[in-house]
Amino acid sequence: DVDRERFVETMKEQADIGGTEDGGLYRLTLSEEDKRIREWFTTQMEEENLDVTVDEFGNMFGYREGRNPDAGTVLVGSHLDSQPYGGIYDGAMGVVAALELVRTLNEENIETERPIEIVNWTNEEGSRFQPAMQGSGVWAGEHALDEQYAQTDAEGNVFEEELERIGYKGSVPAEPQKEYDSYLELHIEQGPYLAEHDAEVGIVTGIVGFTWGAITFCGEADHSGPTPMHYRSDALVAAADVITQIRRIPGTFGERTVGTTGYIDAKPNSINIIPEEVTFTWDIRDPDPDIIEAARERVLTEAEYASEREGVDWEYEDRMWTDPVHFADKCVGAVAGATDRLGYDSMRIFSGAGHDATHMHKLMDTGMVFSVSENGKSHSEKEYTSWADCYKAANTLANAAFELATE
Amino acid sequence: DVDRERFVETMKEQADIGGTEDGGLYRLTLSEEDKRIREWFTTQMEEENLDVTVDEFGNMFGYREGRNPDAGTVLVGSHLDSQPYGGIYDGAMGVVAALELVRTLNEENIETERPIEIVNWTNEEGSRFQPAMQGSGVWAGEHALDEQYAQTDAEGNVFEEELERIGYKGSVPAEPQKEYDSYLELHIEQGPYLAEHDAEVGIVTGIVGFTWGAITFCGEADHSGPTPMHYRSDALVAAADVITQIRRIPGTFGERTVGTTGYIDAKPNSINIIPEEVTFTWDIRDPDPDIIEAARERVLTEAEYASEREGVDWEYEDRMWTDPVHFADKCVGAVAGATDRLGYDSMRIFSGAGHDATHMHKLMDTGMVFSVSENGKSHSEKEYTSWADCYKAANTLANAAFELATE
Ligand SMILES: NC(=O)NCCC(=O)O
Ligand SMILES: NC(=O)NCCC(=O)O
Repeated sequence: DVDRERFVETMKEQADIGGTEDGGLYRLTLSEEDKRIREWFTTQMEEENLDVTVDEFGNMFGYREGRNPDAGTVLVGSHLDSQPYGGIYDGAMGVVAALELVRTLNEENIETERPIEIVNWTNEEGSRFQPAMQGSGVWAGEHALDEQYAQTDAEGNVFEEELERIGYKGSVPAEPQKEYDSYLELHIEQGPYLAEHDAEVGIVTGIVGFTWGAITFCGEADHSGPTPMHYRSDALVAAADVITQIRRIPGTFGERTVGTTGYIDAKPNSINIIPEEVTFTWDIRDPDPDIIEAARERVLTEAEYASEREGVDWEYEDRMWTDPVHFADKCVGAVAGATDRLGYDSMRIFSGAGHDATHMHKLMDTGMVFSVSENGKSHSEKEYTSWADCYKAANTLANAAFELATE
Repeated sequence: DVDRERFVETMKEQADIGGTEDGGLYRLTLSEEDKRIREWFTTQMEEENLDVTVDEFGNMFGYREGRNPDAGTVLVGSHLDSQPYGGIYDGAMGVVAALELVRTLNEENIETERPIEIVNWTNEEGSRFQPAMQGSGVWAGEHALDEQYAQTDAEGNVFEEELERIGYKGSVPAEPQKEYDSYLELHIEQGPYLAEHDAEVGIVTGIVGFTWGAITFCGEADHSGPTPMHYRSDALVAAADVITQIRRIPGTFGERTVGTTGYIDAKPNSINIIPEEVTFTWDIRDPDPDIIEAARERVLTEAEYASEREGVDWEYEDRMWTDPVHFADKCVGAVAGATDRLGYDSMRIFSGAGHDATHMHKLMDTGMVFSVSENGKSHSEKEYTSWADCYKAANTLANAAFELATE
């Protein structure tokens, strides 16, 4: 069993780095806060005598020997970056739980058959730089390193330069350096299903796929007063039309289909100028790839209609696509076995959020543990999980990982 | 007759101060560029031996004696501030034309019966600070000085501090210091009507009234993936719903009704967070005050519906209201007489844009001259009026003002 008090203390410690006044986190990837949490994490890993490495994409690893050095390693972790005004559990809890697994093994002098490695992936959130799950995606060979180095944030800062600036561009190639057996990740659910079903821990069976992209309408700036309505090419009206459709399209598919516009930027953004150029995003998800593709098509069709109605030009850019993922029986079984042994009320659940596990799944057997998210809130300072629920999830992870490592 | 070459040269000179790469102007009120154009204007007025004063709200005046010092003064002018990426004619041409009137009288040693004063009003545009026509509004007693001093821009800069910073907080009270007979203003039409009717100069008979305001929806930030659609309180969807209505409401009233959302701001503005707080503006205009009021009511009703549909809170703020204005026969007649004498094709027209004349109308007999706006474009770098059309309007203004001053 993981030490509950130490686990909670460590959770609070990490939450101080980039903590906001309202009890959330503002720890964007490659920011000063990210640098500080990475320094903190390095210290924690060194104190546990882990072999610490940082790869060229900033992914951080801490390796613990196994009895059998030739056996595939069990990788356990998540991410330490946050959304703007995000919560303190999202990502960080998975890294802290991985650390607690190692601390517990060290404290009790337990040797495992397989080596265990813990990991903090770079830029899981995808808020400052896109795509999300970027570090794990590069490591899994899903994205080309150079392309990802060249990504820029909204201020035009280049990923590679920011990584160098915070001192976390390591020398190890961003790809597997050894044989891996399996990957386990603990994360908060970020949705309401576990709480709705009074479950204590979620046994994650897979992850929805998603499509991300951005649409830009380009109309004509003009005076809001003397310009008759039929003279206008209003980029914001076209955008608003599509945004209302992105809200409504999911309802024509399944109950798990979701569609969101999270970002909008209008130019010149003046009360008495007809907007000339508006960029906004779509984010559509579903467990079924055909539904995702069909919904994406509908968004683009709505954009075409809106552009015709308003007489504005338009273009779009795909920013991310992931296929739905179904986890390995071995890992799902290990998580289920752990909840059984520990006597926790559990429930099988399909994740609505993307995770680094999405990419790991392509390289090795993968599974996840979910903790309850009160009200399903996350990507918000109101994100909340009781310490009791946090602990149960962390304990489940530790036990499942231990089982995979001794098997 | 005004000297055409000198007039065009002066127009180009002013357009260099805050000029953009694409031939427009970026000369926001109380900015560095505003400071420089004010310095330039002071020099021009001093060269014409005008008595220059700056009032406590930054309005700038240049006074030229009349034969009869007791006769009410004829005030002529407009504004030198611009929209972000606005055009080079909007406002500036009215000030340059007023300057040319004085230059022509000086050059030809013409004494007028009434004194003539030229003016540059502070913050006509209303883009950086609101309301629009702020300087003339304060001067006319429509707004309380202290309230307007306290206005802030989007970055939180305070009007009074910015006015002091650029050195144009004068000592003269911002109210009439003498008796005025009438006010004349030249402006580009900013709409398509003169061009559509092949007219060379517009005789303005009045100005539409308008309502400006801002609506803020407050929902709940949450994760765009695991949050089911029916759990959401999406502030951006609510805003988009109302924005599409603001586009459509005018079509249910008259052909002169216009409705625009020019500004939108979404928080936290991240691709995978459901927007929590969105603020956007309305700008609705019509020649009939009852229509303006009814349309404003409809916008608020739509906001109420949208807030119910999305389960978001909302509030609104009125930012400006002006009643429609009908100009004095004396001034409309002086402008019409000038176009007749000069042999220009003219047309009577009601202004769709607000002007400083809106406020002057409450203090004295007021009239306006419009020049043609090619394609009706303005508040845009594509704003364009041929020098031939500019000159005809300037000449009309000079002749009409001369008539009012000798009468
Ligand atoms: N888990 C999580 O918040 N991932 C970020 C990527 C996503 O939007 O799903
Ligand atoms: N003329 C002009 O652009 N005035 C600014 C105020 C308005 O939006 O009408």
